[in-house]
Amino acid sequence: MTTPLRGLLDRDVVAATAGVGLFAEALRDQAVPVTETEWAPPMAGTEADLATVMADRRRVEANALAFARMTAAEAKLVDVRPAAQALSLERGTFLHAGPPLEWARASGPMRGALIGAVLLEGLADTPEQAEEQLAAGHYTLEPCHHRDAVGPMAGVVSPSMWMYELRDDVHDNTSWCSLNEGLGKVLRYGAYGPEVIDRLHWMTRVLGPLLQQSVRASGPFDIKSIIAQMLQMGDEGHNRNRAGSLMLLRELLPGLITADAPSADIAEVVRFSGANEHFFLNLGMPACKLATLAAHNIPGCTIVTTMARNGTDFGIRVSGAGEEWFVGPANTPEGLFLGSFGPEDANPDIGDSAITETGGIGGFAMAAAPAIVKFVGGDVPFALEATQRMYGITEGEHTAYTVPILEFRGTPTGIDVTKVVRTGILPQINTGMAGAVAGVGQVGAGLVTPPVQCFPAALASLARRAEL
Amino acid sequence: MTTPLRGLLDRDVVAATAGVGLFAEALRDQAVPVTETEWAPPMAGTEADLATVMADRRRVEANALAFARMTAAEAKLVDVRPAAQALSLERGTFLHAGPPLEWARASGPMRGALIGAVLLEGLADTPEQAEEQLAAGHYTLEPCHHRDAVGPMAGVVSPSMWMYELRDDVHDNTSWCSLNEGLGKVLRYGAYGPEVIDRLHWMTRVLGPLLQQSVRASGPFDIKSIIAQMLQMGDEGHNRNRAGSLMLLRELLPGLITADAPSADIAEVVRFSGANEHFFLNLGMPACKLATLAAHNIPGCTIVTTMARNGTDFGIRVSGAGEEWFVGPANTPEGLFLGSFGPEDANPDIGDSAITETGGIGGFAMAAAPAIVKFVGGDVPFALEATQRMYGITEGEHTAYTVPILEFRGTPTGIDVTKVVRTGILPQINTGMAGAVAGVGQVGAGLVTPPVQCFPAALASLARRAEL
Repeated sequence: MTTPLRGLLDRDVVAATAGVGLFAEALRDQAVPVTETEWAPPMAGTEADLATVMADRRRVEANALAFARMTAAEAKLVDVRPAAQALSLERGTFLHAGPPLEWARASGPMRGALIGAVLLEGLADTPEQAEEQLAAGHYTLEPCHHRDAVGPMAGVVSPSMWMYELRDDVHDNTSWCSLNEGLGKVLRYGAYGPEVIDRLHWMTRVLGPLLQQSVRASGPFDIKSIIAQMLQMGDEGHNRNRAGSLMLLRELLPGLITADAPSADIAEVVRFSGANEHFFLNLGMPACKLATLAAHNIPGCTIVTTMARNGTDFGIRVSGAGEEWFVGPANTPEGLFLGSFGPEDANPDIGDSAITETGGIGGFAMAAAPAIVKFVGGDVPFALEATQRMYGITEGEHTAYTVPILEFRGTPTGIDVTKVVRTGILPQINTGMAGAVAGVGQVGAGLVTPPVQCFPAALASLARRAEL
Repeated sequence: MTTPLRGLLDRDVVAATAGVGLFAEALRDQAVPVTETEWAPPMAGTEADLATVMADRRRVEANALAFARMTAAEAKLVDVRPAAQALSLERGTFLHAGPPLEWARASGPMRGALIGAVLLEGLADTPEQAEEQLAAGHYTLEPCHHRDAVGPMAGVVSPSMWMYELRDDVHDNTSWCSLNEGLGKVLRYGAYGPEVIDRLHWMTRVLGPLLQQSVRASGPFDIKSIIAQMLQMGDEGHNRNRAGSLMLLRELLPGLITADAPSADIAEVVRFSGANEHFFLNLGMPACKLATLAAHNIPGCTIVTTMARNGTDFGIRVSGAGEEWFVGPANTPEGLFLGSFGPEDANPDIGDSAITETGGIGGFAMAAAPAIVKFVGGDVPFALEATQRMYGITEGEHTAYTVPILEFRGTPTGIDVTKVVRTGILPQINTGMAGAVAGVGQVGAGLVTPPVQCFPAALASLARRAEL
């Protein structure tokens, strides 16, 4: 028999350390070269669940399958239709962003958006009346995600609003998102003044039908391909959608120009769409929803398939834990403010748009979009570091979405609950910030993470379902 | 009196070395910490001229003024007109890229483009006849630059071609560039087949007049602002113009949609323009020409104001040396090839598009456009390094054009002949590659530098003009 360790200590000692710095310091004091690696203990109290879930015999394969499905999912814009048709949304039902929510616990911007939607539908004559009806429980509130839809910020959808309809034929899934209203005083940020409702009426009367004509005439349009390209053009797909919006406009144009409509309407639709640098967000979100939907409901899988906020709670769902939500209080983003607004004006984190991070773009792709730091705060090294940090909690590197400055490395994709719990690293989200008071609208944009507790809770559920 | 050096050698010696590595190695052998800096002797035989030009009492102020003018220059797209009107271009005169050239010395793509232009103007019925006329000296050939115009690749302009007209009101300058034909078999790459001539006729009949209507209806358009934005969107403005082209299209759209023309023509113009990712190049080039024009003809100034190639010669002009060209044989780019083309198919460097590098973008801004390496070759570290290397030969950092990944540092702007000669660092250009044979068209894209000899020649001229 050989002795494999023979001679090991005859050579100079070279050490690697993990965790607290004391060991490394002690070695350096003795002139021993040392390489330190980062390490932190798992989140408190998770050791037993972690051991159980890591031992689930289905886990490795389930996660690999989820990742393969997420990255293979298509996203084709196939139609634009009113929510009443597309989602069979009933009069008196309103969809909203994030996990389930009741009026009593709803934040200012969520209340403002619901009031606006009630007014838009003609169910009340005044904001006060709408608020009374909502408070009295006249209406049904339901998460967008429960109908495979997504909505930015408050994410309120009512039956007359027009929706983008996206298809993933590979996995036979469909997802929907409302049309983007632009920035500032808009419904999704909780504003509901007359100019907000007028704009929504115009969107229903002119914008939606014209987009429908264009998509039906020259679609379907490959939204996944636009996301892949925009990451080569300084966008990350959550708070920077400049190139994506221009590419979408280019796709829509031929069908718009030849549409059967007054040329003044066409010109206004082009002007409205071209002026909105976030126009594409409402396509990128359902594209990411289709990716995560394809990865959902795989037994034993520890990949996060939903992260969503309703302005009060932050909720996640996990592939192997079905329709269960794991919820904690939403954090308030830190970032840059518009005009004279400041941190005290900001509502806690809100919106389904964290589906972008769940799908491997947004905050996870900030290295592709260094200029975003001028909008959400942070600096360029932070943007690079954010993406690199996310490789530590994800299943793999996206096969279609790549980051040029990282030498075309795929974006970190497929948040693994076990990796989040083991490392304590939380998903990096960037986001718009709504004013905390109903009616105010957007006050800024910033950086935020989910509340820690969602992940140990999800892990516990996975542990209960584990097959060893 | 104090002795300032007292105690210097009482402390540990810390050394910095420049140039050959022997000194640093010798110090390291003696365990002396050493910082090496790059240094190379000036270009051979330039020492005397360099001393004279560096001593020119006007130099420092002249260069600062040139830089200030370059970065302050505006670039507004104010009109689109035929060259006959815009440049008073006479029938029988043809403009071309680069320094002055005679037919006998013209390369394949330059000959092909001139043949095509003669056919377009209806001056000959066949390519053979056009070639005979050109060889017999029937026509006048003149550099675009001599009329403050610029042309990509062969850069051939004939009277019936429509030109973008850009204004810099700050310095009261105007510049022009022809309309972009798209990629592949196009006149500017030396192709002159029937499909090339047909497209040029359509551009003259439909595209030009419609662009004119749009610019006159809703212009002027701020091209400088688009360049500033495209650098935030992964373009460098020479061989990557994707975001720029989309932003230009967005500006032109309202005026196109409401133009007085058949909607089929409008739709075709939008489709043609939207499909061309280099559409913007022909705006970026005259914008850079306006910047360098503002810096030209300042006595004592050592800043390069023109770099241009005619496919045979590479020529530069320098602010303090007036209209004199300093010429050397054009290098052949190295890079990536289309289809089955290879290095043996490539013509030497051609086109006025190196005005982008002269103006501080293009190869000088490659750090802003890491994805360009997929088109011109090299790798991402090279793209970053190229921009950083150019800071060593330029007067300053552009005030409007910034590179996000370099933490919004301004692009290296204003090539200083003295710095090029002192360091031996040549300007980094990226470029399209034309086929060497007339009629072939584009064969690839790559990286290239000017021939060395332009710079000592320019320095010698500056030395003769020096005021000590």
